[in-house]
Amino acid sequence: MNVVVWNENRHEKSNPAVSEIYPEGIHGVIADFLNEENVSVTTATLDEEQHGLTDEVLAETDVLVWWGHKAHEEVTEEVAEKVKQRVLDGMGLVVLHSAHFSKVFKKLMGTSCDLKWREADEKERLWVVDPTHPITEGIGEYIELEKEEMYGEHFDIPAPDELIFLSWFEGGEVFRSGATFKRGRGKIFYFRPGHETYPTYYNKEVQKVIKNGVNWVKNTSTPAPVYGNAQPLETINN
Amino acid sequence: MNVVVWNENRHEKSNPAVSEIYPEGIHGVIADFLNEENVSVTTATLDEEQHGLTDEVLAETDVLVWWGHKAHEEVTEEVAEKVKQRVLDGMGLVVLHSAHFSKVFKKLMGTSCDLKWREADEKERLWVVDPTHPITEGIGEYIELEKEEMYGEHFDIPAPDELIFLSWFEGGEVFRSGATFKRGRGKIFYFRPGHETYPTYYNKEVQKVIKNGVNWVKNTSTPAPVYGNAQPLETINN
Amino acid sequence: MNVVVWNENRHEKSNPAVSEIYPEGIHGVIADFLNEENVSVTTATLDEEQHGLTDEVLAETDVLVWWGHKAHEEVTEEVAEKVKQRVLDGMGLVVLHSAHFSKVFKKLMGTSCDLKWREADEKERLWVVDPTHPITEGIGEYIELEKEEMYGEHFDIPAPDELIFLSWFEGGEVFRSGATFKRGRGKIFYFRPGHETYPTYYNKEVQKVIKNGVNWVKNTSTPAPVYGNAQPLETINN
Amino acid sequence: MNVVVWNENRHEKSNPAVSEIYPEGIHGVIADFLNEENVSVTTATLDEEQHGLTDEVLAETDVLVWWGHKAHEEVTEEVAEKVKQRVLDGMGLVVLHSAHFSKVFKKLMGTSCDLKWREADEKERLWVVDPTHPITEGIGEYIELEKEEMYGEHFDIPAPDELIFLSWFEGGEVFRSGATFKRGRGKIFYFRPGHETYPTYYNKEVQKVIKNGVNWVKNTSTPAPVYGNAQPLETINN
Repeated sequence: MNVVVWNENRHEKSNPAVSEIYPEGIHGVIADFLNEENVSVTTATLDEEQHGLTDEVLAETDVLVWWGHKAHEEVTEEVAEKVKQRVLDGMGLVVLHSAHFSKVFKKLMGTSCDLKWREADEKERLWVVDPTHPITEGIGEYIELEKEEMYGEHFDIPAPDELIFLSWFEGGEVFRSGATFKRGRGKIFYFRPGHETYPTYYNKEVQKVIKNGVNWVKNTSTPAPVYGNAQPLETINN
Repeated sequence: MNVVVWNENRHEKSNPAVSEIYPEGIHGVIADFLNEENVSVTTATLDEEQHGLTDEVLAETDVLVWWGHKAHEEVTEEVAEKVKQRVLDGMGLVVLHSAHFSKVFKKLMGTSCDLKWREADEKERLWVVDPTHPITEGIGEYIELEKEEMYGEHFDIPAPDELIFLSWFEGGEVFRSGATFKRGRGKIFYFRPGHETYPTYYNKEVQKVIKNGVNWVKNTSTPAPVYGNAQPLETINN
Repeated sequence: MNVVVWNENRHEKSNPAVSEIYPEGIHGVIADFLNEENVSVTTATLDEEQHGLTDEVLAETDVLVWWGHKAHEEVTEEVAEKVKQRVLDGMGLVVLHSAHFSKVFKKLMGTSCDLKWREADEKERLWVVDPTHPITEGIGEYIELEKEEMYGEHFDIPAPDELIFLSWFEGGEVFRSGATFKRGRGKIFYFRPGHETYPTYYNKEVQKVIKNGVNWVKNTSTPAPVYGNAQPLETINN
Repeated sequence: MNVVVWNENRHEKSNPAVSEIYPEGIHGVIADFLNEENVSVTTATLDEEQHGLTDEVLAETDVLVWWGHKAHEEVTEEVAEKVKQRVLDGMGLVVLHSAHFSKVFKKLMGTSCDLKWREADEKERLWVVDPTHPITEGIGEYIELEKEEMYGEHFDIPAPDELIFLSWFEGGEVFRSGATFKRGRGKIFYFRPGHETYPTYYNKEVQKVIKNGVNWVKNTSTPAPVYGNAQPLETINN
């Protein structure tokens, strides 16, 4: 399995508070813990040629992990369309935190993907609501994060195919913070935590969920459906 | 309730076989039977200024019914985006037959919306699989259409929120031919039948389903959610 | 529309704190505000003959509202089965608060319907997560209840057909507190609030949701499906 | 992984046409092809003590495959309840063909599970409608069975969590013939084909789907949720 971890990698360059937590970038930390799994992991970032997502790279990627925040608009329409198309063709996609507003996720959802937010160093508790799901494997009743950004409902997404985590926030809000979607032949997992100013991606349970998510979104070897004009399989009497 | 029936209205101009069946256009027949309900119905077509869908028209439309086929690409990106946005803002949308490939529907679904098709004058039988749904009100176990175009699976849509009709085709295929989706604050009903060379929209049961669909997709008066930065509702201890 | 409000009506007899809040019983208050709608409302309670739910009563009931808590086991198996069967035959069902553990709801869900709970006079905030749903009509972004019993995840129900409200609790839990289910030809709405020691059913927003719920679960006039041995509709070549 | 294949095993004893096709019973054939996977497979049948499903057997079973037809009522209430409870506690369940009417499946669904049927040696074609699903792995666009019993809609089940196959029948009906459900901590896969008078379980694609199904329903190692009275995780100000 080939996994590509994509990161905007801008906060890390401009905000010392972020680069102190993630000296090799958010993508670096995520690639590190995914490397513990039996997978091949590379990274790609916004400022690379074609954002590091050439046709060749995309063609060989089984699962793409996406983190973006302040520069969604700098992702070219062309690359965003290609990534969307690869998901429809079967590439798995793990969408993290502020990537709810990425071009790719919005194109795949068809909605605004808007939400409430607040940066107030508050506590988040992610409750498991689907304990049968492989993405929760090894996770207890909840994951507690001492300080995170708040995301609150209404989260403007289509009703998820599966709802896996619900977040409680100290300031009084709730959020559908783990959810799966199937689009075309691709599987998508959205996972809420991971604001750049907190060490969330060092949390072992958060890592476990992302690992589980990567495994869950990877494609099956079911043949691609055939579309278009079709000959009848039975005799038509007309 | 203000309903606008939008039609491409091209087959009617170029194909005598179509204009014979629908001398006032497909939109004319649909508007006629919707007029039997206690609603205000107008029509709009592709070749009108802004396709008949100005900001003023859209702002006052509660439900938009959409039929298109051969000229999807001639709908401007601008109008398609505005219509999508109005759906997200609460306008109901009924998507008929070949409008599965309309810009608006594809933008809202996020998938290719592709399918199998065949024009072979074959029989279609639409089975009710959700007899609790208001859209099936007054419909028996199935609707039978002696001659229709075939649409077959795989239909590349997100898993519908509700699956209402399943079609059987004489040539050996099946299709999810009645399905609902919620996107933003808007409700969407896709209904399969209605190829331009058949008198499908004169069928009383098809008319009943479309009437039911129009009623079902109309907006509620729930206030719009508030998005963006939010003050805490509870004290945060940090 | 005939609505029957069923109540266990035991706390009201044994606990002065409850009878002070609900001197005519929880059913009395619910029947009162439903009477404001254009419906016919009656009540039935556990200690009546057949719990007030004779075959005649059930046959004429369009929507049944159910509140129970400490005496679920005293509902006879026979009546519970009859009520379940009437739901499958099309009677709407609104299940309130501790009725999550009623025989009828558990039979219809097929799961334990278990949850976490706590009586600690804590704040509950019910967030709307499906603003398109008629059950949220007229409700703002959330409903706030100053003091309620806590119900927390994991709530052992099947994934709801529609998730409408999510609760935030002061003590740190979340809950899927408004959810719909279709079973057979019947529609079901579960709504969480309403512990007997709080005046929750006097809250105008809670009342509005229950009124909306009653309207939503009422049956359509779609004919009943036919089951069993069926003659072919097409020629079989074998 | 421990798999138990349960079979009523009555047609095989009373109907030579069945025993000729399945001389070692339907369970024998299913156990044989599951043995090709890296799993431990045993069988159990109705006429064994406790139907072969003692507490010890159930406790060690990861996945139960169930086939029954004419003797559903002979399964004791006690065993049916125990099996249901084991599913809620995490045992996977694959429900085949006429087991739609088994006590266990009906208890888990909460509905009548009724349907249309016909024995007319007709053709069935099962179309894949969810090509992302692991249960379709390795299966093409459809599976064709030359002769099978017909099952037709309306199929009285709750809306499935995932719809995987849709059947077309020569006689004019359609059916949701592959569907998944989660109940409690257990996963359930219903798969339609397999009437006792046809050699359906020798079909390699049918076998592949059942193998995939067994793998999909097996439990995760997510800890069991805790239910009941719960201490607050946060300070409550009242």
